[in-house]
Amino acid sequence: MKTVADYIKTIPDFPKPGILFRDVTSVLDDAEGFKLAIDELDKLLDGVDYDIIAGVESRGFLFGAPLAYNNDKPFALVRKKGKLPRETVEESYSLEYGTATIELHKDAIKPGDKVIIIDDLIATGGTVEAAAKLVERLGGEVVKMIFLIELTDLKGREYLKNYDVASVVQYEGE
Amino acid sequence: MKTVADYIKTIPDFPKPGILFRDVTSVLDDAEGFKLAIDELDKLLDGVDYDIIAGVESRGFLFGAPLAYNNDKPFALVRKKGKLPRETVEESYSLEYGTATIELHKDAIKPGDKVIIIDDLIATGGTVEAAAKLVERLGGEVVKMIFLIELTDLKGREYLKNYDVASVVQYEGE
Repeated sequence: MKTVADYIKTIPDFPKPGILFRDVTSVLDDAEGFKLAIDELDKLLDGVDYDIIAGVESRGFLFGAPLAYNNDKPFALVRKKGKLPRETVEESYSLEYGTATIELHKDAIKPGDKVIIIDDLIATGGTVEAAAKLVERLGGEVVKMIFLIELTDLKGREYLKNYDVASVVQYEGE
Repeated sequence: MKTVADYIKTIPDFPKPGILFRDVTSVLDDAEGFKLAIDELDKLLDGVDYDIIAGVESRGFLFGAPLAYNNDKPFALVRKKGKLPRETVEESYSLEYGTATIELHKDAIKPGDKVIIIDDLIATGGTVEAAAKLVERLGGEVVKMIFLIELTDLKGREYLKNYDVASVVQYEGE
């Protein structure tokens, strides 16, 4: 019986020397792997009451869109600055390889919405913290953050201790 | 009875003055709209024999990933240069707003694979033609190209006359 971890390839020195890159795209190369990944993510939402899934560009779209579709929920796009066409809120943050600004459409989240945030991977947690701030500025409540992969040594879960964080596959040691 | 077109917002002057932007992200703001979009795209694949869906970054991921998951198919990522971690093939092309280079993992397509290419929108067809070349260089066969939106005046369908092109919503006049 294969697990999601069996479908994840590890790429040394990408995108920079010294970085051991956990490649979620290899999960999608295999129909069984992709199915398993979505189904395991879906289990993390069992019993959670939510209105909308917000996914972080662009690998978060790969996992968040199927989850939203299959659970009859809308999907909100958290994108890098300049890519969303309507009025947005924006948030800057530092991340492992530099800094970035992300945006969310102002009308994507309604006050009182219970929101799931999804990304492919959690490292230090900076990106999803910024995504959570965007949701909260629009009056939404982040009820859970879910990830396919968690790099536990980077302590993202500790950094995000005010949120409910869950992941499918955990890696230690880098 | 609402159609997909009812969920598409039109944004003037994005990303540049004079461009009338058909915003597919507004479809995802509504669970019904998103469901309808995916189901209509899925109908375009009725009776088509294929092995894998290749989606163009990043809005192609939003529609292609749910289709692949629900049809038990793998999903191949066509991404902008520098974002895929493993060995790739690449192709440059000109597009409405400039030029770009896209990549595909060498091992994402196997020789003989029947491939569906999906993107949110077809304008001149330059991007998906480049995506098709990537698939073909790896020995795959593009059996169909599908889009949520088609801007018919830009004649992408004519440009791609060697391929089977289909779309859910067509707009004329810009």
